[in-house]
Amino acid sequence: MNAGTDGATSSPLDEAALASADLATLRERIDGIDRHIQQLISERAQYAAHVGRAKGPLAAAVDYYRPERESQVLRRVVDRNDGPLGDDVLVRLFREIMSACLAQQEPLKIGFLGPEGTHSQQAVFRHFGHSVHGLPLASIEEVFQEVASRSADFGIVPVENSTQGTIQSTLDMFLTSPLKICGEVELRIHQHLLSRSGRIEDIERVYSHPQSFAQCKAWLREHLPRAEAVPVSSNAEAARRARNADDAAAIAGESAGTVYGLKRVAGPIEDRPDNTTRFLVLGRELFPSSGHDRTSLLVFVNDQPGALHHVLAPFARHGLSMSRIESRPGHTGRWQYAFFIDIAGHVDEPAMRAALDELAPYAREVKVLGSYPVAIA
Amino acid sequence: MNAGTDGATSSPLDEAALASADLATLRERIDGIDRHIQQLISERAQYAAHVGRAKGPLAAAVDYYRPERESQVLRRVVDRNDGPLGDDVLVRLFREIMSACLAQQEPLKIGFLGPEGTHSQQAVFRHFGHSVHGLPLASIEEVFQEVASRSADFGIVPVENSTQGTIQSTLDMFLTSPLKICGEVELRIHQHLLSRSGRIEDIERVYSHPQSFAQCKAWLREHLPRAEAVPVSSNAEAARRARNADDAAAIAGESAGTVYGLKRVAGPIEDRPDNTTRFLVLGRELFPSSGHDRTSLLVFVNDQPGALHHVLAPFARHGLSMSRIESRPGHTGRWQYAFFIDIAGHVDEPAMRAALDELAPYAREVKVLGSYPVAIA
Repeated sequence: MNAGTDGATSSPLDEAALASADLATLRERIDGIDRHIQQLISERAQYAAHVGRAKGPLAAAVDYYRPERESQVLRRVVDRNDGPLGDDVLVRLFREIMSACLAQQEPLKIGFLGPEGTHSQQAVFRHFGHSVHGLPLASIEEVFQEVASRSADFGIVPVENSTQGTIQSTLDMFLTSPLKICGEVELRIHQHLLSRSGRIEDIERVYSHPQSFAQCKAWLREHLPRAEAVPVSSNAEAARRARNADDAAAIAGESAGTVYGLKRVAGPIEDRPDNTTRFLVLGRELFPSSGHDRTSLLVFVNDQPGALHHVLAPFARHGLSMSRIESRPGHTGRWQYAFFIDIAGHVDEPAMRAALDELAPYAREVKVLGSYPVAIA
Repeated sequence: MNAGTDGATSSPLDEAALASADLATLRERIDGIDRHIQQLISERAQYAAHVGRAKGPLAAAVDYYRPERESQVLRRVVDRNDGPLGDDVLVRLFREIMSACLAQQEPLKIGFLGPEGTHSQQAVFRHFGHSVHGLPLASIEEVFQEVASRSADFGIVPVENSTQGTIQSTLDMFLTSPLKICGEVELRIHQHLLSRSGRIEDIERVYSHPQSFAQCKAWLREHLPRAEAVPVSSNAEAARRARNADDAAAIAGESAGTVYGLKRVAGPIEDRPDNTTRFLVLGRELFPSSGHDRTSLLVFVNDQPGALHHVLAPFARHGLSMSRIESRPGHTGRWQYAFFIDIAGHVDEPAMRAALDELAPYAREVKVLGSYPVAIA
């Protein structure tokens, strides 16, 4: 009998017995659990290797990495979690386990936007785990190039920030690129109050970007009503200035504080916890449905009355909800427009196919940029 | 029956059956394993929470973090590993599982020599897993201060590099600090030449920490004999500077290049391929024996004939092997010397006690800096 197939029968812990257990007993139990976890992880790695071998003797990780499958696994982890660890913690542990199992032959190579962006790098680890090779690149364009030329297996690029809006240079790359979107990552970004001393009583001046001030207004009014708010061009600039004064603080992300050697006075201090950056995972092919997918389309239309209506109506008719639309001037003709549209569902699903068929006569071109699992946790 | 106590009975996988299994069957098996792993991790977290509660209702992670216990757990993981995953991968996964279980109430706060992208930060994650709060600090001295003042639970400082030798500023801190060493981390470190363009012909200036220059001396002499070497305070700082110039490069670890978006011009470029940095984990107390420990001593002696012999002889007599000795001028008197000595074993062991007793009459003072688990994997 394999250890992996008999696990669902265990009963809940006996709380009363536990409360009276001594340290040695608790540790003995934990040791038994660890032995068992290790056995299961090793067994999982063997099965994963067999999945790889089924793809042929020369298969690399990229040949059997399946984002829709990983997404399903993680969704099940969240569905059956009833504590005590948080969903995010368990998702992270399972990402690492899958990442390690996948990397047995050669790890995935992931290109990402290097500068300023510890956030892009964070997104790489968040999505792929730590058993990958990260390739830091100098521009979003280079990330596309390296994936297209197969120097990288996948790429990660930022596409949208809930405070700054869409990152146009990313969207524009899709106008001409043959790459496909095969995943998304959402990174919640927290604001912290950072200073050299770490003591709130020293603070007479706070530097930050105006948007960050706006996000932390209530907190500042309550905790630092008399401090002067000095708007600067970026939160990194705020952190840089705060580094040079004893009586100043910055509102910035943790990574800015890390780079400039500041201490956290308080945080997270944003009034609403919805500050998120969205990243896209770039690959070279479309993957099957995970069951919880999003489809990104690029629709080129001529600039004529009713064009937008004709593009959108089919999705409404088929009950497909749109999470985002953005118009961009197309590059191929003076009077053309391009719409970037995100729709719930996968292109393989009948409703989506039907909507796309109905839309076709009204568009000069419809490009499916990708159908990919919705971000988890 | 708890899932954790019945795991040792599983038989090995049936290779023949596996080879013929189709993808759906393999995935079904993996799903069963995942369900089981998750159940065990959750159960482990519950037991860990009980260990915490046993320490009192206000116990923080630092109150029940036990380095000797973690070391024993990881050693067992390595001992029973027979693949297919590497020891280092399994140790990393178990570090993360333990880290997550420990962080249920409040995560450990770990001070380290910042900024982000430094090897010290890597050492933090390597030793404590990712479920901790890292506090980037501006100097080694500050790491000591923050741990002493309880702003950080533990600190991590570099102490020794295999090509460059001891980091004197760290050792000297122990001359006056009351802190204890409660762990060590070994990081194999590769140096790379990194720049914005990635082209060696653009480079007229190289930034790096003096120690990294020393490690790559022969390579630089051969490949960049005319470039100006500009010493800076850390390799992360070097990478940050190289980012801002077309004609500059940095010698730094891969992670610094990753953080600052530089390309690799060449690497690894260290002259000796066994380039390892050893870090010490600083805490406020001594911990019990893990069974595989090292003891660090600071012995003050008067400068008199035979002083060194008297200090070393007791260890030899008791069969205790010395892995390191380093003499430093003591700060308390003109003719005093201090020896930093690393010995195999724990101060609680009889042989070590006996040796220390025999050494006492010949020393002005003997400080036990720490007895801590030898680094794993």
